[in-house]
Amino acid sequence: MELSPTERTRLRRLREQGRSDRAALFAVLGAGFVCHLGVVLDGAPMVVPTVYGFDDDFLYFHGSVASRSLAGGQTVCVTVTHVDGLVLARSVFEHGVNYRSAMVYGLPRALDGDDKLAGLRVLSEHAAPGQWDYARRPSRKELAATSIFALSLDEASVKIAEGPPGDGDGPDAALGLWAGVVPIESVRRPPEPDPALPGDITAPAHITALAT
Amino acid sequence: MELSPTERTRLRRLREQGRSDRAALFAVLGAGFVCHLGVVLDGAPMVVPTVYGFDDDFLYFHGSVASRSLAGGQTVCVTVTHVDGLVLARSVFEHGVNYRSAMVYGLPRALDGDDKLAGLRVLSEHAAPGQWDYARRPSRKELAATSIFALSLDEASVKIAEGPPGDGDGPDAALGLWAGVVPIESVRRPPEPDPALPGDITAPAHITALAT
Repeated sequence: MELSPTERTRLRRLREQGRSDRAALFAVLGAGFVCHLGVVLDGAPMVVPTVYGFDDDFLYFHGSVASRSLAGGQTVCVTVTHVDGLVLARSVFEHGVNYRSAMVYGLPRALDGDDKLAGLRVLSEHAAPGQWDYARRPSRKELAATSIFALSLDEASVKIAEGPPGDGDGPDAALGLWAGVVPIESVRRPPEPDPALPGDITAPAHITALAT
Repeated sequence: MELSPTERTRLRRLREQGRSDRAALFAVLGAGFVCHLGVVLDGAPMVVPTVYGFDDDFLYFHGSVASRSLAGGQTVCVTVTHVDGLVLARSVFEHGVNYRSAMVYGLPRALDGDDKLAGLRVLSEHAAPGQWDYARRPSRKELAATSIFALSLDEASVKIAEGPPGDGDGPDAALGLWAGVVPIESVRRPPEPDPALPGDITAPAHITALAT
């Protein structure tokens, strides 16, 4: 008996689940620091990678690349995706990807003054905890040349696909083919010093801690 | 002497370069299989992760998640990004990310019949070479339930940021702070068999070859 597309869809849904809890959202946002920012520019979509950070209520992102389209005040979509595995099933149709992805929609607010400094700090501490107190902080001029936006986390969704392929208990299991997952992982290697760095300056603990 | 923002911008530009050669485009597209697809839906941008493949002229992507907005025939933006490192400079301002990113703009064409099968094959062989001949190919019904789009590679751009932080020869070098890069790498682990798989079915060579 061949499964109907509807039944297949059901199986795939078990692998791929929407999550609405905040903990899932924070877990996905916490696992990376580069998002894809979608804006509309001259009627067409534009998707640019940019760095982000977040707190309980807002996602903060670097907006210089999209500043022209963000200036007008428009809804954006920020998507953060982690690819966790390549799912190899018995049939091409059941192949897929294990992933965790969060989408946040909203009208971003351009930050100024102390708010901008605070947003930049969240962003910096998210990507490299400890650097805010270690590195030289932005001058007034540098801060003016930086665009930081805050996006409410109110309208957010999370989708997670995980586990083995969904056709292990279907008719294709009888084909005798190998099926499973090739796990994919993002790994941070030990810090590599700037060649311009004098040899007596060693990486402080908060930097060596950044390696996986 | 403090560098002016313009000079800083120049330094940053040396780290971050646009590339217009096809070889650079193919190298970025070849290094992954999940892209971020940007569409406009009800006037707002939507950015969704999806799988892709490519040949000399087209990028092929799975379009089921965005089928509603793609049905009308609209320009999309497909962005592929690889995060290669976290750049830790002497100043917060000079912090950044090493990355390779490709953006492709165009009006995608929904594929049908043999074209759809050929597009799906490109996509499948890109993510998992050898699976097209190994796994069960799509039935007519499965193919009908699959949306594959072809997007011309004519309008594409590549941006690459690499190397150490740009402030190694600036006034901040005198601060005596550590600076460098935390390399980030996407690693494929050895294949994990589906728990439903009988023990006597071992992974064929084209699958074990998928691990990094």
